[in-house]
Amino acid sequence: METNPCNKPINGGSSIPSRASRKTRQEDTIVNITGVEVGGSEIIIIAGPCAVESREQLFETARSVKAGGASILRGGAFKPRSSPYNFQGLGEEGLKLLSIIRKETGLPVVTEVMDTRQVELVASYADMIQIGSRNMQNYPLLKEAGMCHKPVLLKRGMMATIEEFLLAAEYILNQGNEQVVLCERGIRTFETSTRNTLDLSAVPMLKRLSHLPVIVDPSHGTGLRWMVPSMSKAAIAVGADGLIMEVHYKPEEAICDGYQSLSLDEFDLLMADLTKIAKAIGREISVPKVWPG
Amino acid sequence: METNPCNKPINGGSSIPSRASRKTRQEDTIVNITGVEVGGSEIIIIAGPCAVESREQLFETARSVKAGGASILRGGAFKPRSSPYNFQGLGEEGLKLLSIIRKETGLPVVTEVMDTRQVELVASYADMIQIGSRNMQNYPLLKEAGMCHKPVLLKRGMMATIEEFLLAAEYILNQGNEQVVLCERGIRTFETSTRNTLDLSAVPMLKRLSHLPVIVDPSHGTGLRWMVPSMSKAAIAVGADGLIMEVHYKPEEAICDGYQSLSLDEFDLLMADLTKIAKAIGREISVPKVWPG
Amino acid sequence: METNPCNKPINGGSSIPSRASRKTRQEDTIVNITGVEVGGSEIIIIAGPCAVESREQLFETARSVKAGGASILRGGAFKPRSSPYNFQGLGEEGLKLLSIIRKETGLPVVTEVMDTRQVELVASYADMIQIGSRNMQNYPLLKEAGMCHKPVLLKRGMMATIEEFLLAAEYILNQGNEQVVLCERGIRTFETSTRNTLDLSAVPMLKRLSHLPVIVDPSHGTGLRWMVPSMSKAAIAVGADGLIMEVHYKPEEAICDGYQSLSLDEFDLLMADLTKIAKAIGREISVPKVWPG
Amino acid sequence: METNPCNKPINGGSSIPSRASRKTRQEDTIVNITGVEVGGSEIIIIAGPCAVESREQLFETARSVKAGGASILRGGAFKPRSSPYNFQGLGEEGLKLLSIIRKETGLPVVTEVMDTRQVELVASYADMIQIGSRNMQNYPLLKEAGMCHKPVLLKRGMMATIEEFLLAAEYILNQGNEQVVLCERGIRTFETSTRNTLDLSAVPMLKRLSHLPVIVDPSHGTGLRWMVPSMSKAAIAVGADGLIMEVHYKPEEAICDGYQSLSLDEFDLLMADLTKIAKAIGREISVPKVWPG
Repeated sequence: METNPCNKPINGGSSIPSRASRKTRQEDTIVNITGVEVGGSEIIIIAGPCAVESREQLFETARSVKAGGASILRGGAFKPRSSPYNFQGLGEEGLKLLSIIRKETGLPVVTEVMDTRQVELVASYADMIQIGSRNMQNYPLLKEAGMCHKPVLLKRGMMATIEEFLLAAEYILNQGNEQVVLCERGIRTFETSTRNTLDLSAVPMLKRLSHLPVIVDPSHGTGLRWMVPSMSKAAIAVGADGLIMEVHYKPEEAICDGYQSLSLDEFDLLMADLTKIAKAIGREISVPKVWPG
Repeated sequence: METNPCNKPINGGSSIPSRASRKTRQEDTIVNITGVEVGGSEIIIIAGPCAVESREQLFETARSVKAGGASILRGGAFKPRSSPYNFQGLGEEGLKLLSIIRKETGLPVVTEVMDTRQVELVASYADMIQIGSRNMQNYPLLKEAGMCHKPVLLKRGMMATIEEFLLAAEYILNQGNEQVVLCERGIRTFETSTRNTLDLSAVPMLKRLSHLPVIVDPSHGTGLRWMVPSMSKAAIAVGADGLIMEVHYKPEEAICDGYQSLSLDEFDLLMADLTKIAKAIGREISVPKVWPG
Repeated sequence: METNPCNKPINGGSSIPSRASRKTRQEDTIVNITGVEVGGSEIIIIAGPCAVESREQLFETARSVKAGGASILRGGAFKPRSSPYNFQGLGEEGLKLLSIIRKETGLPVVTEVMDTRQVELVASYADMIQIGSRNMQNYPLLKEAGMCHKPVLLKRGMMATIEEFLLAAEYILNQGNEQVVLCERGIRTFETSTRNTLDLSAVPMLKRLSHLPVIVDPSHGTGLRWMVPSMSKAAIAVGADGLIMEVHYKPEEAICDGYQSLSLDEFDLLMADLTKIAKAIGREISVPKVWPG
Repeated sequence: METNPCNKPINGGSSIPSRASRKTRQEDTIVNITGVEVGGSEIIIIAGPCAVESREQLFETARSVKAGGASILRGGAFKPRSSPYNFQGLGEEGLKLLSIIRKETGLPVVTEVMDTRQVELVASYADMIQIGSRNMQNYPLLKEAGMCHKPVLLKRGMMATIEEFLLAAEYILNQGNEQVVLCERGIRTFETSTRNTLDLSAVPMLKRLSHLPVIVDPSHGTGLRWMVPSMSKAAIAVGADGLIMEVHYKPEEAICDGYQSLSLDEFDLLMADLTKIAKAIGREISVPKVWPG
């Protein structure tokens, strides 16, 4: 996976079985997120705001995406931002808001963790912890996630090869946590008309090489709200086990990523279209579970 | 389109209306390839071998893809190859074979032209001339194609931005030929598990910026036969007006691109799946026309 | 710096002065690493093994690179490796070995830190802490490094733009630590004949935009031992303030990165050539200081 | 060179000796451009405007770069431009102006050819014909250049691997023309602060793999006038056999590429610096020959 041939694995290397590989486990892994199964025949939709900004913003968005058919709620409390002067997230206050609306709606919650010291805290609030693109090769964080007992959503690094992506997952699996969902979210290329280039070929490639579920993030993958619907349909047609989408009750007022967030109405419309595509390939969109899960 | 701000268009530039732009022409352009319409509600399938290798290879493949539902036949007579020691195509002999099977099957033919001096020759045999990825910025060739009276299939350069792609089309349109079909066929990125990275986001982007039809080449875009079906489904779901696929009656014996060519059976199976996806988005796959067109 | 226009900096953003910018501080920053100055007229050479493997390996290499003219010793105790099954470094045992040879040779030591929880530990042994390429956007780690009182060597992410690189430095500066050295170490491109593409244009660009010192890592930048000398000469000619190179007393036996490590003799030969290039541009190679510093 | 393994060379392929390879010819090839030798111990400087715009512009620039130490004059008469609405060059009128100033100054002339039909015409005026980046894989043009009796300057495609670059050269050599000079001119990457990423590691790589001379184009490679001097110094330090630079008597009025063109004074200053770097690596800058050569 590295071009440098001297990266000899310790103890002979290739003889060590890769836990993420199809060769090690042929049947699909199904990850259970507090009752919502990812990787089976149903396609799951994760939706919610980029960042938790306020009680009203989170709660209105959460209630609406649940009504629209989302099975899991997303929302960032700790935000990795290119500039230190950008909004860094509400922190534990954001986690608490997620936990309140989680109880009300019954939607399991996924939220990002950036620091080894916060894995325990985040895991105590979330149903699934997310390791973001910029931290895909943050090995201490991967190990810490591997030691916690929550499912992990691992996003592909924006310049990571498929092999590096699977090796990052291997760090988590190798600690005993087998509940890993892979997420293609766009890679960095020379093209600038989109925020990233969403690499949909990663979906069939990952599913061929690994038994882990694979979902797609069309919001970060394109950076363009109007393009999210068409790329979402393509992601399901190509075989993704789910989507994670940014939805905001007032996209034009969003503190971050408003340009790529769907409005509540746009989300509802899209769900209807996705249902048709899922059916055309012999799958179904998962419906929100009745609480308690 | 170039980062260098000194690329000032002559005569003020941005005031010149771009012929490829949606702003210039709002309704979709429909390109008519000897009776087969591309860019309307029907999705067209172009299929055939990478290169014309022999009478038997071409004819058997052509008859089979027609039976399977392809509307247009592809096959290269002049082949751009990275090495001068690779098979360079049968040349005019290949064009003649295409013309014979074209008459028999009634399938219009698309084939590549690489040299300004051969545009007239190729256009005399083909229903549509193809300008390949490596020649997307071969401006004399674009101009020559703009002066001929045949539709042009313009493939995106593997290093070309969306803007450069549309400007290449502009060279053709600017000569008075408005029958241009754009083709996304994969861009070059750091990822090496696929031959190229098929940029499906190019489809909605091109259709938003331009009125020209857009098709997708999943064969070159992935370089992997087993991945062609899933990416074909995604291409239709994302909104492509058609597909161009490599199909070979004996892929394992193909002189070029066998690893990415579908067998005749694989093509038939795929067509059934594509029909379902097309229906899910409210479109249909075009059926081969009854000859004479 | 992000293509997404909604990444609005908090509090108006662009009005906040960037601490890394030349506009904020016009004169060059000189970083003092226990007596060795980086960013002045002298060019500093950092050399040593990729990873600390053993007492013998480290000590022999350290003594030799000092004799050859290196001013600072490098050596990894905590290693970020793509696979969990590769050698992960000796950990604190490695730090202790670095500290012994540091005392003997008088060479200040730079070593990598990967985990927020280890910054204090690593800083207690090292004269300069390194944040590696994979952690360039590990914001909690950058903040922690900004709160410690040691100089920081920040390597460019293999997928990071110049703007993102400077914003990562900003996270450190913003915590009050102004002792930051930037390091170009190769970016990921489509080219595979080298491990990465060493972007030497980053040196004049960074020095124009920022007052921070800039050094180059030709070992990771090329991944090829035989190419290190020519790229090192180019790095000095282009204006780098120093080099960081992998040197190993027995490259063919190295546990990691042997293919890109110079032998002791190769390092000595290169130093002679670098002296000439430095002179041609009116600078000098810094000589190892006499201990105690 | 292609990831697709079915690209089997005809007739066994790898047994065919590559004419560009060091394995076929161990000693360096020296290309003679009407008396100016490229590839020997002397470093040659090619300078002149991006495009021939007018008699005054060309003549004043040519006289000045000769006085400053350039050995060969560059200037485009046929210009490959991204947009059909940009200045396309003066055509044969430009070639005639080049021929007049060539006679006056004694400087051999290199100019670009884009169309197979114009190779004979351009070769009748030029001492060396240039095949530009966009045409690196225009195989009919490469073959035509291989059949003419003038040296060829072949520029690397902006997304071409080293292997594809050498295979493009092979097309020329294979026609019997062994007078080929390779030119690194920047590759396309994700970085946008420079026009391209000048890949200086290509110089030692190409010289190791091939016996052909290698020069560098810092003007297109950076797109920034102020960066040309530092990258030129690096190019010589890394081992390039020459440089090709854009110089304009009034850069701010240039029709194309003014932002990356040196002024006459800047060129003179740079030449003094380059002389020092050349000396530091044991080479010399070639001086303009006395006419007639």
